Amino acid sequence: MRTTAAEDVIFGLTRMGDTEASGLSADDVAQVVNEAARFCRDQILPGAQAADREGARYANGTVTTARSYPGVYRQWMEGGWQGLSAPEEFGGQALPGSLWVAMMEFALAADASFALGPLLTAGAIECLDHYGSPEQKARLLPHMVSGEWTGAMCLTEPQSGSDLGTLRTRAEPLGEGRYALHGQKIYITWGDHDCTGNIVYLVLARLPDAPPGSRGISLFVATKMLADGTRNALRCGGIEHKMGIHASPTCTMLFEGAEAELVGTPHRGLNAMFAMMNNARLAIAVQGVAHGARALELAEAYAAEREQGGRKIEAYPDVARMLMEMRASTLAARLIALETAAAGDRFRRTGDAEAELRLALLTPIAKAWCTERGVENASTGVQVHGGMGYCEDAGAAQVLRDARIAPIYEGTNGIQAIDLVARKLGRDQGAAMRALIAEAREAAPAIGTTLDGFEAATALIVAAEPEAAQSVSFAYLDAAGWVLGAWLLARAAQLDARYAETEHFFRQRMLPRAVARIAEINAVLGRSGE
Amino acid sequence: MRTTAAEDVIFGLTRMGDTEASGLSADDVAQVVNEAARFCRDQILPGAQAADREGARYANGTVTTARSYPGVYRQWMEGGWQGLSAPEEFGGQALPGSLWVAMMEFALAADASFALGPLLTAGAIECLDHYGSPEQKARLLPHMVSGEWTGAMCLTEPQSGSDLGTLRTRAEPLGEGRYALHGQKIYITWGDHDCTGNIVYLVLARLPDAPPGSRGISLFVATKMLADGTRNALRCGGIEHKMGIHASPTCTMLFEGAEAELVGTPHRGLNAMFAMMNNARLAIAVQGVAHGARALELAEAYAAEREQGGRKIEAYPDVARMLMEMRASTLAARLIALETAAAGDRFRRTGDAEAELRLALLTPIAKAWCTERGVENASTGVQVHGGMGYCEDAGAAQVLRDARIAPIYEGTNGIQAIDLVARKLGRDQGAAMRALIAEAREAAPAIGTTLDGFEAATALIVAAEPEAAQSVSFAYLDAAGWVLGAWLLARAAQLDARYAETEHFFRQRMLPRAVARIAEINAVLGRSGE
Repeated sequence: MRTTAAEDVIFGLTRMGDTEASGLSADDVAQVVNEAARFCRDQILPGAQAADREGARYANGTVTTARSYPGVYRQWMEGGWQGLSAPEEFGGQALPGSLWVAMMEFALAADASFALGPLLTAGAIECLDHYGSPEQKARLLPHMVSGEWTGAMCLTEPQSGSDLGTLRTRAEPLGEGRYALHGQKIYITWGDHDCTGNIVYLVLARLPDAPPGSRGISLFVATKMLADGTRNALRCGGIEHKMGIHASPTCTMLFEGAEAELVGTPHRGLNAMFAMMNNARLAIAVQGVAHGARALELAEAYAAEREQGGRKIEAYPDVARMLMEMRASTLAARLIALETAAAGDRFRRTGDAEAELRLALLTPIAKAWCTERGVENASTGVQVHGGMGYCEDAGAAQVLRDARIAPIYEGTNGIQAIDLVARKLGRDQGAAMRALIAEAREAAPAIGTTLDGFEAATALIVAAEPEAAQSVSFAYLDAAGWVLGAWLLARAAQLDARYAETEHFFRQRMLPRAVARIAEINAVLGRSGE
Repeated sequence: MRTTAAEDVIFGLTRMGDTEASGLSADDVAQVVNEAARFCRDQILPGAQAADREGARYANGTVTTARSYPGVYRQWMEGGWQGLSAPEEFGGQALPGSLWVAMMEFALAADASFALGPLLTAGAIECLDHYGSPEQKARLLPHMVSGEWTGAMCLTEPQSGSDLGTLRTRAEPLGEGRYALHGQKIYITWGDHDCTGNIVYLVLARLPDAPPGSRGISLFVATKMLADGTRNALRCGGIEHKMGIHASPTCTMLFEGAEAELVGTPHRGLNAMFAMMNNARLAIAVQGVAHGARALELAEAYAAEREQGGRKIEAYPDVARMLMEMRASTLAARLIALETAAAGDRFRRTGDAEAELRLALLTPIAKAWCTERGVENASTGVQVHGGMGYCEDAGAAQVLRDARIAPIYEGTNGIQAIDLVARKLGRDQGAAMRALIAEAREAAPAIGTTLDGFEAATALIVAAEPEAAQSVSFAYLDAAGWVLGAWLLARAAQLDARYAETEHFFRQRMLPRAVARIAEINAVLGRSGE
């Protein structure tokens, strides 16, 4: 029995998640989710293909977004969506983060280029809420929570990508807590645009007395417009010509003495940024889910209508196989993302250390595994369409082009795998992972053999030299994703028979990929393989 | 030790293939291959990125190719490359088909959009050489073999893609062996262009007395220009806006009473087309190899130059892993394509039935597995570049966009898998596959366990009901590719120690993917899995 993305999300939030603990009834959740899905389908989706063709444009230091975007953004703002899970004190609705995650799935599926603006704004809100001074928060957050101003994160520099320790942007003290920023930032998503009158920039830079490396980086906040209504000394120097997300302006930002304030403690900017990045990483995991869901929607519709050899192509076993792979791995990815979001909500609600460990453990898996599946499913969606899928009219190709960025940004998937193996396993010698495996074994005895293999691989990784462990870190993360997916699908099928067929397909036909990854790890880390 | 693509190809042709049996010394082969590689690097590659940006353009019934193309095409023609493996009688050099395959790898890697023109022309030459009348051959082939005219294959119609039995283009007899073609063909690669003065179209259509379905289809040949120098009644009705291969014009062709001649026997057009398609399928397999090779070349160069965290990124274990995956699976794909080409050469030379069976068995595996790896490696190549890879300037994104078509055209990879399982295993109950497995077991005892599993899966598939077999046909084809790759790499490593590291990596880290596929087949066809 097929379920819609909204039904799956509601199920994931209420039956498998813990929105109830946040004081929300299942009906409350269903109402918000259905309204979010409807808004994205009716307001965001219709302009997405035209926006991709138009793309963001740059001329004379200014970015112009697709014709439809300012209007769509106004709808977004007026609907109050930006504040869904933002603090009430600054005008938000303070709903659990997992509901924001649900909203982001629909928005990213409808138009990833558009949704990236609100996604980055949410990250900036979270960062300022945690690290900003009361005065900064009171001055900036109400405008951001309402959606009146957007937020942008300025980390990467030409010489400084995965290794932020080498960044060079400098902050010159002007006295009275004010600084002038000098430097160039690249790959700044929604760094400039014409949808709002102001933009808030969170910028990593060095103070004059900063020690070299990653311990000498501080966080600053700057706005496009100054309090007196004049332009700050920062501007967009150009936008990238990309494979996809054409309508999302990816900006080079030039800080030419821009006025800024310090956020949080000097030299501790990376900590603040990493805290925010965990959240952004979950949001990008959701992007993987969203592209899979959109690809599936298009492929299902096409396969139900296209006829070859006297029957609809959905009736052919190999086409049915492709659709089931998309359905099963997209649902598994959705459940992993929601499980991660639920751990975040639990931690924010209770401050529980176990929840924090679980959140930290799941985040890199969710980011990397869900975005790998997003690309894979977008590609399978193209394949279901045949030649039509390769032509841009059908929309399937755009999903693939848009999906391909997600394994790269917010920390490449390779970096996620190293984070998982070196930091998340390393800090407790795999204890949090073993706890998770034990939970999975309890809930899903049918995957016990694979769990045994995965637990043994975990022990091999924990015991390995760092370089050896990192050479199989991606294989390990991938195995973890398949195993987690099988566990969560087993739980889902136990709670609701509508998921039984998907669970069975995933376990029989996709879980063996975890076994292959485990064999790879065993072969490299000492046990014999072929 | 790293080897270049040209070195690998020479090794594959001479040490593993049988160019010697065709009377060519290793030096002869090396000379042709090195010259082909040089030509593609110096003449074709330089304009590829600009051609992608320009794209093919259509206006008023006429296609204009990228500015550089007519000049590059002239070089191609003047170099005599089109005739490399064409019959001497029509001006060709009659070298083995595997040398043409080698040339195609370099040309497709340099610029797939450009190379598709010659690739399709070669298919049309082969078809006419086999099925044309002596008079047709004498009149058409010299112009095509010289490259003065190109060839295009006109199969697909809007309602008729994978199922050609439903095509509607009709051929109206005009007497004296002449026909008027009426109908619309879509997705015609290089269907119109401005690089030559004439184009030869091979067109599938129905005669008035044709039985319905696939047994009522005949093959016709038409030319853009008639013998008297006037235009034939056919024209390009538009070109597709595609995800990639932007510079290859993908045309809708309108036949509006175009004068044509029958090729071969009435109602037997599909047979002729399938004979030609086997060859085209091998060429598309080579496209997969080529995209992997080009992606690897770009990624290696970037990783050797880009520094993060104080060292070149190629030194990081996870980046090294990505490069090795690309290297190993591209080499495996190259060896599979060359093995298939060698079987074709052997068959053409000796008429040997075993060689024909081997060619028929390997063709769908080569087409599907090599193009899947092409997409995968192009995507990994983007990943190695990080954010830069997603921007079009680096070139990696173009490789991925161009690679994505190969699993679709010349029979989708799903169709290849069905061909493998239903026809190639079905016709001899898996005997040819068992012979291949026995040969692999002999040459590569280290992969014996996997071969046992693959042989058992083969028996399960042969015994299964057709619909059940087809639901795992893609898994089976994928397993076959990994197994074949491991076997050929083992042979390569035995002959040349330079391949030992790659073989070891592939066997330890990639061959487990075959095991996962075998587990999937076992689970579906009755043996228990998790």
